[in-house]
Amino acid sequence: HSKDKYQGNDVAGVVTGLAWTSVGGDILFIETSLSKGKGKLTLTGNLGDVMKESAVIALAYLKAHSEMIGLTPEVFNNWDIHVHVPEGATPKDGPSAGITMLTALASAFTQRKVKNKLAMTGEITLRGRVLPVGGIKEKILAAKRADITEIILSEDNRKDILEINENYLKGVTFHYVKNMMEVIDLALTNQKVSKAIKVA
Amino acid sequence: HSKDKYQGNDVAGVVTGLAWTSVGGDILFIETSLSKGKGKLTLTGNLGDVMKESAVIALAYLKAHSEMIGLTPEVFNNWDIHVHVPEGATPKDGPSAGITMLTALASAFTQRKVKNKLAMTGEITLRGRVLPVGGIKEKILAAKRADITEIILSEDNRKDILEINENYLKGVTFHYVKNMMEVIDLALTNQKVSKAIKVA
Amino acid sequence: HSKDKYQGNDVAGVVTGLAWTSVGGDILFIETSLSKGKGKLTLTGNLGDVMKESAVIALAYLKAHSEMIGLTPEVFNNWDIHVHVPEGATPKDGPSAGITMLTALASAFTQRKVKNKLAMTGEITLRGRVLPVGGIKEKILAAKRADITEIILSEDNRKDILEINENYLKGVTFHYVKNMMEVIDLALTNQKVSKAIKVA
Amino acid sequence: HSKDKYQGNDVAGVVTGLAWTSVGGDILFIETSLSKGKGKLTLTGNLGDVMKESAVIALAYLKAHSEMIGLTPEVFNNWDIHVHVPEGATPKDGPSAGITMLTALASAFTQRKVKNKLAMTGEITLRGRVLPVGGIKEKILAAKRADITEIILSEDNRKDILEINENYLKGVTFHYVKNMMEVIDLALTNQKVSKAIKVA
Amino acid sequence: HSKDKYQGNDVAGVVTGLAWTSVGGDILFIETSLSKGKGKLTLTGNLGDVMKESAVIALAYLKAHSEMIGLTPEVFNNWDIHVHVPEGATPKDGPSAGITMLTALASAFTQRKVKNKLAMTGEITLRGRVLPVGGIKEKILAAKRADITEIILSEDNRKDILEINENYLKGVTFHYVKNMMEVIDLALTNQKVSKAIKVA
Amino acid sequence: HSKDKYQGNDVAGVVTGLAWTSVGGDILFIETSLSKGKGKLTLTGNLGDVMKESAVIALAYLKAHSEMIGLTPEVFNNWDIHVHVPEGATPKDGPSAGITMLTALASAFTQRKVKNKLAMTGEITLRGRVLPVGGIKEKILAAKRADITEIILSEDNRKDILEINENYLKGVTFHYVKNMMEVIDLALTNQKVSKAIKVA
Ligand SMILES: [Ca+2]
Ligand SMILES: [Ca+2]
Ligand SMILES: [Ca+2]
Ligand SMILES: [Ca+2]
Ligand SMILES: [Ca+2]
Ligand SMILES: [Ca+2]
Ligand SMILES: [Ca+2]
Ligand SMILES: [Ca+2]
Ligand SMILES: [Ca+2]
Ligand SMILES: [Ca+2]
Ligand SMILES: [Ca+2]
Ligand SMILES: [Ca+2]
Repeated sequence: HSKDKYQGNDVAGVVTGLAWTSVGGDILFIETSLSKGKGKLTLTGNLGDVMKESAVIALAYLKAHSEMIGLTPEVFNNWDIHVHVPEGATPKDGPSAGITMLTALASAFTQRKVKNKLAMTGEITLRGRVLPVGGIKEKILAAKRADITEIILSEDNRKDILEINENYLKGVTFHYVKNMMEVIDLALTNQKVSKAIKVA
Repeated sequence: HSKDKYQGNDVAGVVTGLAWTSVGGDILFIETSLSKGKGKLTLTGNLGDVMKESAVIALAYLKAHSEMIGLTPEVFNNWDIHVHVPEGATPKDGPSAGITMLTALASAFTQRKVKNKLAMTGEITLRGRVLPVGGIKEKILAAKRADITEIILSEDNRKDILEINENYLKGVTFHYVKNMMEVIDLALTNQKVSKAIKVA
Repeated sequence: HSKDKYQGNDVAGVVTGLAWTSVGGDILFIETSLSKGKGKLTLTGNLGDVMKESAVIALAYLKAHSEMIGLTPEVFNNWDIHVHVPEGATPKDGPSAGITMLTALASAFTQRKVKNKLAMTGEITLRGRVLPVGGIKEKILAAKRADITEIILSEDNRKDILEINENYLKGVTFHYVKNMMEVIDLALTNQKVSKAIKVA
Repeated sequence: HSKDKYQGNDVAGVVTGLAWTSVGGDILFIETSLSKGKGKLTLTGNLGDVMKESAVIALAYLKAHSEMIGLTPEVFNNWDIHVHVPEGATPKDGPSAGITMLTALASAFTQRKVKNKLAMTGEITLRGRVLPVGGIKEKILAAKRADITEIILSEDNRKDILEINENYLKGVTFHYVKNMMEVIDLALTNQKVSKAIKVA
Repeated sequence: HSKDKYQGNDVAGVVTGLAWTSVGGDILFIETSLSKGKGKLTLTGNLGDVMKESAVIALAYLKAHSEMIGLTPEVFNNWDIHVHVPEGATPKDGPSAGITMLTALASAFTQRKVKNKLAMTGEITLRGRVLPVGGIKEKILAAKRADITEIILSEDNRKDILEINENYLKGVTFHYVKNMMEVIDLALTNQKVSKAIKVA
Repeated sequence: HSKDKYQGNDVAGVVTGLAWTSVGGDILFIETSLSKGKGKLTLTGNLGDVMKESAVIALAYLKAHSEMIGLTPEVFNNWDIHVHVPEGATPKDGPSAGITMLTALASAFTQRKVKNKLAMTGEITLRGRVLPVGGIKEKILAAKRADITEIILSEDNRKDILEINENYLKGVTFHYVKNMMEVIDLALTNQKVSKAIKVA
């Protein structure tokens, strides 16, 4: 199976994450789609329970802090949300896609464009913290191979980067964050996507 | 067990897919039926979770892009949808029926006739991409045996066709696609089926 | 365990099927009962998932083609439906009771009498096709032993009958069908059962 | 564990059945209780799926033939029904308690007293037939030990009684039935229990 | 793990039971709490299915015999009920907590104080009988150790007490019961707890 | 994996607990978030059934004793509650987080600040008792390492502390409690958090 490449930032709600599998690191995509509804959350992509919980936590956090992304809490009750992680043949689990899911949901609800060639990995918590995750070295190699130039990590993963030979890090900028709002500030541009839908 | 033959395109919502089983390739049929209702989705045919997710993704995509097939999103709330994959004795799973399910649903909701002697295989994503799938060689042989003359594949499966001896490919036209809208454009004719029901 | 005998056609919604078990062929009965309600489907008789799906497909087909049996689609929303397959100690599964379930439901909703001494076996699909099933030889022997004189099979099971010694087939008439409407036409008489309830 | 004794017929909805366990035959009790409600059915007593289905079938049959016990079908929508089989430490399964459940429900809804010192065993079907069950010899011995004097069996279990030494049968009257209505006619007296509640 | 002690009768809905575990007998507590609601029953404490059924049976019995404890059946629809059995680390199952659960629910709904230093063990049935349970010797020893002075048992457990050396029984009064109403009469005082809430 | 540090008390609904894992003691965080709703409880963090029950019990207790924290029972019906325990990769179970969950919920609903550098461990019961838990020595060491200075334990865990060498206990104050209200009184300050939301 060949490895994936970065695929642009034209669509709202699609964010690039970093995954660590039995055959090494890879990038993955979180895709989010909104349709008029009552707040139902659908999760597909052969996801395990812990990965599903990441989406539930991300959504709860955005609801509780909706004003920080310029929305009212009511907006979340007017849309059904579908989050998909492609490549259904691969079972996926673990908490490391948390910040990627958070960013995908925030982009979908604001229709703001995600920063170009950006990827990320990190667990999220309900109070807004970003926790470190494993497999950093493999994930960084995969990101470079996929033409990623900026990566968001937990501040607590900084030490893992310091252990990597500098040659492998060339051409990639790292952002270390403690809180989930920092992720959104770093990841979302102020520009709306073309063909933005009217969410609020 | 004898292999299946292509069975015509008289009925809306029925599309021919390509499957890869432990005993080689085969064609399969996705059958879709609509009945007045509230948008409930029923899936039968001894399907695994990943294959069921394909139908959920296809339906979500069509709802979110309903205008591209000339419908309003509300239409999807007025019909119950049943998707069946015949041969209940055979367990079926995996994401490769994605574009076949998409086409079946699009045909059912538009009542447009599916192109004659067409088959397809490919995974779908929520943002509209068509991903490559495995077992291409076996699937192509099965398609030829079943009198298929046109096949839709992911652009990323082109390389698998190039590896097949040209003699095996005679009489079959291949369409390589990147996006799900290309599939619908290729697969659905502009002609309605006879006995079309009034959906919208 | 002694084998079952044919048990008459006095009751609407009861149809004789042919089953293939580890101890040879046998006949089985599909029993259907309607009660005023909202369209709920209850399935009993120690049935596996695939056999349950047969009932769901049969019901969906009848709803979608209600006019062919002289009903409106709304009728199906006014009755709760219970389908039972006797002998609860025996687990039952597989798709081969499909046409038997279809006939039982059609008889229950039309209150038309089922043809005398008729049995059947065949898988159904959502678009109305009748697919071949296995164990034909054993099923035919069981049908003869049970005083059955007419049997409906899929056209694609004709070859299985041709392989059976003619002596075993004496006294039984075979009907080979391609479509589910042919089954209903063959199986249901134009006579209502005595004590017919008012369904429509 | 000591064996159970017959416990009288003072309470509506309580009927004595015959069970066949790994340690021989025993009697069991089906207890039914009604409370004002909307027709919900609760089943307790460590029951397996097939035994639960017996209660569902018995209830469906009574609804469909309510006039035969002097009730309207609507009555069944006005009460919640609880069926319990005592001795929760013992898992119970199989279809043989069918006619016992039928009688218990019929007694509960009519408040008619069950015949004195009566026990029964037999599978039920949705169209009203009573099917034979296994373990007859052990069940008869248990019934005698428990002071039972009348037993209802399926007509198709008559042959099992004929094989038992007559000495074991002294003091017990056997009733062989084909249909479920015969069971109700045999098992329910025309007398209401004392403290009968007003059901209809 | 040290064994538990009796903990008083100040709170309505809390009753002391006797349990038999792999490490000998112990006492346990059934705790019941009511909150305004619609009759929902919540069960916690790492309980197995059979133990959960005991609570369902106890509640059904109280509903059906509400007048015997001075209540109307409607009261049960106006409160949500939570039954908890402490020590979540220990899985608990079996029917022997039946009369303890019955008493706990009766105390909660009447707010009557439970008799001082009383414990109990016995299975319940839907028609109101109290069945014998196992492990009596170990349970009695645990009760004495826990400062219990009165114990309610099924009449059918009387023989188990007779087999115990009299020295072990000193200081404990035994009550043998056949029916569930006897349990309530024995276990509940006519005094309301202090801080009684207004239930009816 | 490095051990966690105490993380402050700026946010309402976040409380520090003590956990005992296969690799020694650790601190954990219970995070609670409220959003306008109808009382739905969502639990995330890879929690086992017993740990989930702790949250259910804590919430039931607070509802039943709402006046003790200055609230009306109705308040609990106006908010959806999400409780999360970070580090999704680690399965968590057992009852020992009970008092931590209780405190987290009480803080969330009152918006009162949790005492600084406080941690706790103890099982809760529905009637309000605090039960002892295991792994005390390992938990105390973890608490010291994490800069905790006050710890709440069950009175029945006092004996476990007495067995620990005094040198290990320097700088930590222990509070032994019997009842859940004592926990709330000890753990919650009278000060509201900054950015308190209006709950009641
Ligand atoms: Ca990949
Ligand atoms: Ca990620
Ligand atoms: Ca095939
Ligand atoms: Ca396919
Ligand atoms: Ca049979
Ligand atoms: Ca059949
Ligand atoms: Ca017994
Ligand atoms: Ca029985
Ligand atoms: Ca204990
Ligand atoms: Ca007990
Ligand atoms: Ca940790
Ligand atoms: Ca804790």
